[in-house]
Amino acid sequence: MLGEFDLIKRHLAALQRGSALRSDGYPESRDALAGVELGAGDDCALLVPSPHHLLAVSVDTSIADVHFPADAPAEAIGHRALAVSLSDLAAMGAQPRWCLLALSLPEVDEAWVGEFCRGFHALAARSGTRLVGGDLTRGHLSISVTVHGEVRPSAVLRRDGAEAEQLIAVSGPLGGARGGLEAWRGGSRALDFDPLLQAYLRPQPRIEAGIALAELASAALDVSDGLLADLDHLCRASGVGAKIDLTRLPLAPGLISALGHERAIAAALDGGDDYELLFTLPEHYLATARARLAGCGCELRVIGRTTEALGIRNWQGAPLAARGWRHFDGDGDQA
Amino acid sequence: MLGEFDLIKRHLAALQRGSALRSDGYPESRDALAGVELGAGDDCALLVPSPHHLLAVSVDTSIADVHFPADAPAEAIGHRALAVSLSDLAAMGAQPRWCLLALSLPEVDEAWVGEFCRGFHALAARSGTRLVGGDLTRGHLSISVTVHGEVRPSAVLRRDGAEAEQLIAVSGPLGGARGGLEAWRGGSRALDFDPLLQAYLRPQPRIEAGIALAELASAALDVSDGLLADLDHLCRASGVGAKIDLTRLPLAPGLISALGHERAIAAALDGGDDYELLFTLPEHYLATARARLAGCGCELRVIGRTTEALGIRNWQGAPLAARGWRHFDGDGDQA
Repeated sequence: MLGEFDLIKRHLAALQRGSALRSDGYPESRDALAGVELGAGDDCALLVPSPHHLLAVSVDTSIADVHFPADAPAEAIGHRALAVSLSDLAAMGAQPRWCLLALSLPEVDEAWVGEFCRGFHALAARSGTRLVGGDLTRGHLSISVTVHGEVRPSAVLRRDGAEAEQLIAVSGPLGGARGGLEAWRGGSRALDFDPLLQAYLRPQPRIEAGIALAELASAALDVSDGLLADLDHLCRASGVGAKIDLTRLPLAPGLISALGHERAIAAALDGGDDYELLFTLPEHYLATARARLAGCGCELRVIGRTTEALGIRNWQGAPLAARGWRHFDGDGDQA
Repeated sequence: MLGEFDLIKRHLAALQRGSALRSDGYPESRDALAGVELGAGDDCALLVPSPHHLLAVSVDTSIADVHFPADAPAEAIGHRALAVSLSDLAAMGAQPRWCLLALSLPEVDEAWVGEFCRGFHALAARSGTRLVGGDLTRGHLSISVTVHGEVRPSAVLRRDGAEAEQLIAVSGPLGGARGGLEAWRGGSRALDFDPLLQAYLRPQPRIEAGIALAELASAALDVSDGLLADLDHLCRASGVGAKIDLTRLPLAPGLISALGHERAIAAALDGGDDYELLFTLPEHYLATARARLAGCGCELRVIGRTTEALGIRNWQGAPLAARGWRHFDGDGDQA
């Protein structure tokens, strides 16, 4: 009766690299290198936290036609669902270790699941994240990924540490995800060739960059809601204001030709889903931070300064506010 | 624009007892007693795992009209969503510590969310579980709860440790959840008075019982799919068979009068969602285990014995198999 469902479970089990299934379906019990005492197959996974580290945990849900198009390639959906959760670890400076996948599927489609797993697995392997458990249910297409990372207390990036007169910087171009969403809506499906579609459907969590910013950045988060909304979160948590130089915004390649200049700027300020890191930095760390990010393949771009005066303003002093490309999902904060 | 949504977020924030929100919405940073270095409000929660313990993690998704009736009381839905995840910790012998809540809601209904939080919170408080983060999205009503527990390596209950000629026992009555589902379908709504509805909508995770069985039970899991299906999981993982004495099944109070004798037995064998612990035990531990479970308010009931011969049989030797009250959701294993 559960034959097809079991087939899909086998795909998900295969995601758990290194925990080869025994013929009875029970996983091998020990994978000490990965800190996995017991992987999927029992009621819980049993993990071995590293001494002297904090455990960073976060969950993000991706829902079809809210967070991604239901007809996007399954491989990209798998990648993206893990990427948005890993981005939260990146924003804390944590090294990814383990994840859990709660997958709700409207129907049993083995080919779709195979592609989904391929996208999920490629990013999991690249980021050092082990899938250690999950839950598979029938329902509208929805994916919740819980991620676990580890970070030494001294290396934690929080959003409440910024002080006035520090630099505000980002780890890469902005607005690409919004441009990609517009391109998708316009009918473009050339995911492998269009960098805007890539930015939207295959965002890259800045894990190495987050780790590289340890003890340099005074505050950090990832740009999920949009630059202005996320900067507002950082500023409120830290009790500072900000001045942004709009001429220095790093726009995603191709964004201006796709949207025109004015909408490109709006996409960068307000579009969300870019998953670059947004951080503050004492000025004397700039050269070190730039060099470290370059080592991770990221270009540090200074876009403004924190201020004593609260609120977010442009370089001329006029107030800037997010204008509502946000969806119901709201901000990427923990609830 | 997000006013109503923010109201709901405030309800969820209030769930996080002990991490009082500052006026700017950012939580107080440190609650050392609870092992919470940083609660919700940043990109991740930061937790302090206990030395010399394993971290037990599990996620379960509850979907409206698959796992519970969409029109069940919101308080019961909140309770149940956490209970089914905590039951996985109980089945490993782990002490609950932290949880994450991914909640998908079709619409903004503050009263509903308030009731949901009340049910969730009461069980969280009683079980020592701290909500440390989550994600709130718009979509069909669906709840994924990730739980984190801790357990010393010597106290772990696994499902693969049973040996032949051991006792098979359960921590309490069976079939009640199935009886409650039938009662609900029959129009009964007297949740506060009907023990079958209680068993279905307010199951009690056997956390203390799981901890009490440490170093006594040779294998354990929780009865989520149904006694026969879950016993089959345990037997396959352990490489043993089982003989069950159907005359000794502890039937839920009121089950026979609700369903009749034959269907009551079928509900106990096959109904699922009871969340009692099913475990195996060397016979010489029986008195100790019974006393310890009594101390947790649970009655240990021996229902059979493990056998060298594989497969599950009744006391007369006839094969027993689950007959399909299972839904698509399938078994409660980690995917």
